[in-house]
Amino acid sequence: MPALRVHNFAISLDGYGAGPGQSLDHPLGVGGQRLHEWAFATPSFHRQHGSPAADDHEPGVDDDFVAHGVAGIGATIMGRNMFGPIRGDWGESDWTGWWGDDPPFHHPVFVLTHHPHDPIPMAGGTTFHFVTDGIESALEQAFAAADGKDVRLGGGVSTIQQSLRAGLVDELHVAIVPVLLGGGERLFDQLDGAMDRYECVELVSSAQVAHVRLARTGQ
Amino acid sequence: MPALRVHNFAISLDGYGAGPGQSLDHPLGVGGQRLHEWAFATPSFHRQHGSPAADDHEPGVDDDFVAHGVAGIGATIMGRNMFGPIRGDWGESDWTGWWGDDPPFHHPVFVLTHHPHDPIPMAGGTTFHFVTDGIESALEQAFAAADGKDVRLGGGVSTIQQSLRAGLVDELHVAIVPVLLGGGERLFDQLDGAMDRYECVELVSSAQVAHVRLARTGQ
Repeated sequence: MPALRVHNFAISLDGYGAGPGQSLDHPLGVGGQRLHEWAFATPSFHRQHGSPAADDHEPGVDDDFVAHGVAGIGATIMGRNMFGPIRGDWGESDWTGWWGDDPPFHHPVFVLTHHPHDPIPMAGGTTFHFVTDGIESALEQAFAAADGKDVRLGGGVSTIQQSLRAGLVDELHVAIVPVLLGGGERLFDQLDGAMDRYECVELVSSAQVAHVRLARTGQ
Repeated sequence: MPALRVHNFAISLDGYGAGPGQSLDHPLGVGGQRLHEWAFATPSFHRQHGSPAADDHEPGVDDDFVAHGVAGIGATIMGRNMFGPIRGDWGESDWTGWWGDDPPFHHPVFVLTHHPHDPIPMAGGTTFHFVTDGIESALEQAFAAADGKDVRLGGGVSTIQQSLRAGLVDELHVAIVPVLLGGGERLFDQLDGAMDRYECVELVSSAQVAHVRLARTGQ
């Protein structure tokens, strides 16, 4: 059975998946970019994004996790805030995501939103589809599009929380970054006991990040 | 300068230093004992507590941290809930702590409480002193008693939070245990920006625990 997987979702030591005060200037919240510096420092990140890796980007456990995050994935689901900073109706917006003309997905991406939007085909095999009837519908469309491969669930925090509460996530890889943001959106919050269905199957760390993989138990 | 140090303070993946529903039957809250199993499995824990270590208690990074937690420590400060389950006035209680006749401290221990209590001398060099005039007074007495050595700050969560808010903690070692408690007392909460003064100086993990050491910055 193809699985729904969350990978490389970074949280701070105090549990936040994004900093406080998200805005166009601070799409990850104030200080939130510090959650992702470890990934930017891996060769796999640059390979995936078509940007040159620097000499100090070294293989290792962090790189392994970044590489694994795209392996066997045939479609991606993400919340609207991960797609862009626009709130409410799309209006005349020509926003096509944070990732430029050739996004690093190279497969169909399903964006959860309350506001209809035509699909946006991009270079390199990525097409953004907009789903207005909820996570379960997005999941159904994504698995159909993935054609036997797994589906990756991106952020943000509220998208992951609602998927966990619905028991939809098969694997959740969290990257704990030892910084303190002091506020923002906590990942492990408002989960109403949903985490009782998950257990840790791997803990490993580099000097920058502790990686925890959780999987759904058989129950 | 002697330092105030927190060691081996275990928190769950969702950030809790104790589970929900603390009581005499569940001094660490429901599920809270899972935060400490990694320490119980180290030879140093058993050496410190005078209990026999089992064959499967192995040295390693967890053991190193448990051993380091007592090195160079001349006095301990703890909150009343860490000393015992009694709330309100001490009454006729003959409670002498959770640790039996010969507690593992072997030095003066200062218990924060609103209710006066005579000192309790125990075997092996431990004496429990009860401090009713606040953390700063406890700190002054503990450093005097430690006679040039460092002071260890035990739990619980609220004792550490108030010490962090007051900028009193020099070193904070947190052990992240990849279990989900779903509720309880969060360590990194209600800190009012106090953590801006701290930075991560070490991250290392075993297969059971991720260890994060935070130290006060020069500012």
